[in-house]
Amino acid sequence: MDTDRQATITVPAAAPLCVPPRRGRPRSEAAEQAIFAAVERLMTEGGTLAELTIERIAQAAGVGKATIYRRWANKEALLVDVLVRLEEPEPPLPGTSARDDLVVILDFMRRRGLAKRSRWVLRVVLDQMHSMPALKETYYEQVVLRRREIMRQVVERGVAAGEFRGDLDSELLCEMLIGPMLLRAVVWDDSPLDDPQLPATIVDSLLQGLRGQAHRVGAA
Amino acid sequence: MDTDRQATITVPAAAPLCVPPRRGRPRSEAAEQAIFAAVERLMTEGGTLAELTIERIAQAAGVGKATIYRRWANKEALLVDVLVRLEEPEPPLPGTSARDDLVVILDFMRRRGLAKRSRWVLRVVLDQMHSMPALKETYYEQVVLRRREIMRQVVERGVAAGEFRGDLDSELLCEMLIGPMLLRAVVWDDSPLDDPQLPATIVDSLLQGLRGQAHRVGAA
Repeated sequence: MDTDRQATITVPAAAPLCVPPRRGRPRSEAAEQAIFAAVERLMTEGGTLAELTIERIAQAAGVGKATIYRRWANKEALLVDVLVRLEEPEPPLPGTSARDDLVVILDFMRRRGLAKRSRWVLRVVLDQMHSMPALKETYYEQVVLRRREIMRQVVERGVAAGEFRGDLDSELLCEMLIGPMLLRAVVWDDSPLDDPQLPATIVDSLLQGLRGQAHRVGAA
Repeated sequence: MDTDRQATITVPAAAPLCVPPRRGRPRSEAAEQAIFAAVERLMTEGGTLAELTIERIAQAAGVGKATIYRRWANKEALLVDVLVRLEEPEPPLPGTSARDDLVVILDFMRRRGLAKRSRWVLRVVLDQMHSMPALKETYYEQVVLRRREIMRQVVERGVAAGEFRGDLDSELLCEMLIGPMLLRAVVWDDSPLDDPQLPATIVDSLLQGLRGQAHRVGAA
């Protein structure tokens, strides 16, 4: 949070970032699969997240409520895992440079945006999440904060290596590098995401700067 | 949408952008005020947007349903106007340069973010909007698209004047200039927004570029 950016930066190497820490795996994969499938089916049938109850999910999955509560403390915890399952796993970072890592992160965001557009269930769950504060908070703590931390470490590594400017707040630097793709992939639903070169174009343009080569021609 | 960016750019001068076109003003300001206040009161009492009906709003406002339908075609149209009222009006753009206009636009987003954090009703309405597709679409068409168009024109003016790079898609350029502040003000709720210098810092840093001055010191 308030780390002294310019002083000792103790960022782990790229490798540990690749495999995010998973919460303890449940023992019965079959029951878990049935539960995930049940939530997805209930949502596809037009249900809302708010209407879902543990009881209804258990019934649809053909398991007892206790089976669900052994794995998840509450509905929010279960739904966050449903969301994580609906999404692709985070990719490994090459670690060749902060620039290269950022391109991979932005490409993950690009593909996630495409998935959100094409996978109705994912979109509905992500959208409905906004009106369920407890779910939103759990998702934020378990998924968003971890992803932000990965980005922050990449950015700080880039600053430490002299790849990125060192005179800006690292959180702000992070927002500048991530913002455009996040905007396109998550907030504005109609901008194209198909171009696989987009992440590299964004990162390299931001590094180079957006100022016009020519000076202003006649300040009208 | 698919305007030929590099060719003839017919951007109006800054002035027309300052005063966004308003839909026809209703005749009775008092009735309108009562209706807006009623919606805000119902929301403050813990209601949800989905539960609100024109009947309930009319009753709370002490007006007939016909009074509401004379002004708004449906609930979504009314709620978008409620949202617009909850927000500050868009600021005039100085028009001195595309850079200066962008700083003003980003500062509007910064102040809107602060308002969303401090005004509970605004936050609730904006969050709940996500799970009401018809409202979201109406808000998008009436508010978001207009704001995006203003930004797009500023960016295209900057490209035409040589202030900004001309080799990038103008929509992408727009996202790069807007993304960081939008991310901070709208998506990530915990980054600080108090610094009035933030908009200028963002725009100027993006124009200069984020590459480190020093080259990489020892690729570890």
